[in-house]
Amino acid sequence: MPELRKDPIIGRWIIIATERAKRPHDFVVEQEKSQQQECVFCEGREKDIPPEIYSVRFNQSRANEPGWKVRVIPSLARLLQIEGDMGRRGKGMYDLINGIGAHEVIIESPEHHKNIAELSIEQITYVLDTYAKRMEDLKGDKRLKYVLICKNYKEAAGVGAIKHAHTQLIALPVNPKRVKEELVGALRYYEYRERCIFCDIIRQEIETNLRIVARIDGFIAFCPYASRFPFEVWILPEEHSCDFYTIKNTRGLAKIMKKIMSRLFEVLQDPPYNYVIHTAPFRRTTSSGFWKTITHDYHWHIEIMPRLTKVAGFELGSGFYINPTPPEEAALHLKGET
Amino acid sequence: MPELRKDPIIGRWIIIATERAKRPHDFVVEQEKSQQQECVFCEGREKDIPPEIYSVRFNQSRANEPGWKVRVIPSLARLLQIEGDMGRRGKGMYDLINGIGAHEVIIESPEHHKNIAELSIEQITYVLDTYAKRMEDLKGDKRLKYVLICKNYKEAAGVGAIKHAHTQLIALPVNPKRVKEELVGALRYYEYRERCIFCDIIRQEIETNLRIVARIDGFIAFCPYASRFPFEVWILPEEHSCDFYTIKNTRGLAKIMKKIMSRLFEVLQDPPYNYVIHTAPFRRTTSSGFWKTITHDYHWHIEIMPRLTKVAGFELGSGFYINPTPPEEAALHLKGET
Repeated sequence: MPELRKDPIIGRWIIIATERAKRPHDFVVEQEKSQQQECVFCEGREKDIPPEIYSVRFNQSRANEPGWKVRVIPSLARLLQIEGDMGRRGKGMYDLINGIGAHEVIIESPEHHKNIAELSIEQITYVLDTYAKRMEDLKGDKRLKYVLICKNYKEAAGVGAIKHAHTQLIALPVNPKRVKEELVGALRYYEYRERCIFCDIIRQEIETNLRIVARIDGFIAFCPYASRFPFEVWILPEEHSCDFYTIKNTRGLAKIMKKIMSRLFEVLQDPPYNYVIHTAPFRRTTSSGFWKTITHDYHWHIEIMPRLTKVAGFELGSGFYINPTPPEEAALHLKGET
Repeated sequence: MPELRKDPIIGRWIIIATERAKRPHDFVVEQEKSQQQECVFCEGREKDIPPEIYSVRFNQSRANEPGWKVRVIPSLARLLQIEGDMGRRGKGMYDLINGIGAHEVIIESPEHHKNIAELSIEQITYVLDTYAKRMEDLKGDKRLKYVLICKNYKEAAGVGAIKHAHTQLIALPVNPKRVKEELVGALRYYEYRERCIFCDIIRQEIETNLRIVARIDGFIAFCPYASRFPFEVWILPEEHSCDFYTIKNTRGLAKIMKKIMSRLFEVLQDPPYNYVIHTAPFRRTTSSGFWKTITHDYHWHIEIMPRLTKVAGFELGSGFYINPTPPEEAALHLKGET
C-alpha cells in the first residue's frame, strides 16, 4: 500500500509510491555528450573573468594569477547588485525591494573537474572552508539576511553553459521561503518539547537505523523519512549547531560529502543533482520584536537532491511531491547493501 | 535594477531579473519528434483500458463504447487506492497515513489531440464540466479533503508516455501544502481587512491594467505580480467564489482558457506547461476546532505555468524563484501588443 508521509519539520505531505518502487536502474540518466573545449574557470584563464573576491592560495601566489585552490568571483550573470539601498516600498497591495544582494560563483577546483565526487578530500575541505568564509564575510553587511549556497550539477539540474565545478552563492535581503518554513516548524517544536527537532530526528534515525547512509567524524547522512526526491540525502552535524559558518571540522564534512557524492555517482551513474545549505539566517525577529540569533531551535544541514524525475504540475502547483523510491530502499542502495 | 517582489498571498519573495529580461524568442522550446502511432486513449480503444468512471456522452451511446466527448478512467499508474482505511499513525516522531485516495485520468477528447488550445470551446466546456462533476462526486467521501486537478503537457512538464490530451485528478486525505499556505495567507488578510485578498488583487489589476491578458464573460486572466515562471498566467472568476465545483458558467471559462492556451501556443511556440486548479478544501477546521466551509476568504483560480526554464537548486532547495521575464512584459506579449 502506498504511504502518505508527513515531513516532521515543515508539515508537507508526500506520497511514497511503494507499489511501483523504482530502483536505481529504473532511472535513465542522460549523459551529456559535448566536451567543453574552452573553459574560463580553468587555471590560467584568470584574466578572462572578473577579478576574484576571495581565494584559497598557498606558496605566496598572487591574486588573479595561477596558483589557487579555490576562487570566488562575481557571477557572470549577476542577479543582484551590492550597491544601492533596499528601497522597500509598496505598489498598492504589493511589496517590493530593490534587487540588492550579492551573487558570487565559487570555483571549486583549478582543474577542469565537473563533479565534486572527483575532488580529493583536501580539495573539498577548501571548498567548504570557502563557503563558511564567504558567509561570515557577507554577514557583516547589515542589509543582508541570508546567504544561500547552492550547487547545480548538469543541465537537468539547471546548470548554465560553464561545466567546470562551481557553486552559486546568493546573499539576500530577505529570508528564502523554505528556510522560513523550517524556522517556524523548528521553533514550534522547540516551544513544545524544548528540544531541537533536528537533534530528535538524528536520534530517531540512529535508533531505527533504517535510512542512515553514513556516519563519519561527527556527521550523519541519511535519506529523510519524507524525502521529496528519489535518493535524496541530508547531511547534518550530529552535535547541535545552527550556523554553518561556525563549522570547525570542515575536513570531516568533506569526508562524508565525498562519500555520499561518490555513492550517488556510482549507484545512479553520474546523476544530475542540486544541493543547498540550510543555515540559520543572520538576523531574526522573535515574537517580542527583538533581534536574536537562533541558537537552540535550528540546526544547519545540507540537502542533496538528485534530479531523476521531472518535476510535474503536482509538485509545482500544489507542493505535493510523489517519490517513487522509498528512502529506506534508497539508503540500502547507497550503502551498497542490495 | 532587478526587483525582489513579494507574493501577497503566501509571502514568497522572487527575483525579477529585469536587466536581462527574456523575451519569447529567448526560450528554446524543444519540439517532440516522435509521433505516437498507437493510442489507447483514442475513440475505439475503450476496451483496452479500465472501464470508465464517468463520461460525457450524447445520442444514447453506451458506457465504455465509442460516442463519448470526455471520459474519466482510473489512472493506469495508480498512486493511491480508494479501498481501505486511513490508518493515521505515528512512527516515533514521524506521521503517516495509508495511501488512500483516488487517482483518475480525464481524457479530454475522443480524437488524438494533444493540446487544449486545439479543442473547440464546446469541447473545453465538456472538460471543465467534468472537472467540476468529479470534484463534486468525490466530495461525498468523507475521508477525502482535497481534489487536485492538474495537467502536465509535454515531457519537460512531466507528462508520461501517453500524449493524448488528458488531465490528472488526485483526491487526497490531506490538503496540499501550497493550498494550505494560500488558505493561511488569505485568512490572515481577511481577518485584517475583512475582504478577500484575491478580490482585492483583481481590483488592483483592473485599476493598473499592467498585467491583464484577457477579460471574458466574468473571468480575468493576468500574469501575477510575483510570477515564479516566465509567462505564468492565473485565471480567476471576477465574482467571488471559493469552490471551483460550484461553477455555473463553464462556457465562459472555456473561452478564456482557449484564448490563453492559444496565445501561449503562438507566442512561445507550443511550450510545455502545467496547470493546476486551486480550490477550497472540502472541509477545514477553524482555530476553534469546528468544521466550516470557507466562503469569504478563499477564491478559486487556475494557475498556468509554462515550463521554459529548468527548475534549479535555488528554487527546489529554498523556495526562492528567479524569473527572467517581468510579468508586465509577458502580458504585453500575450496580448499581442509588442
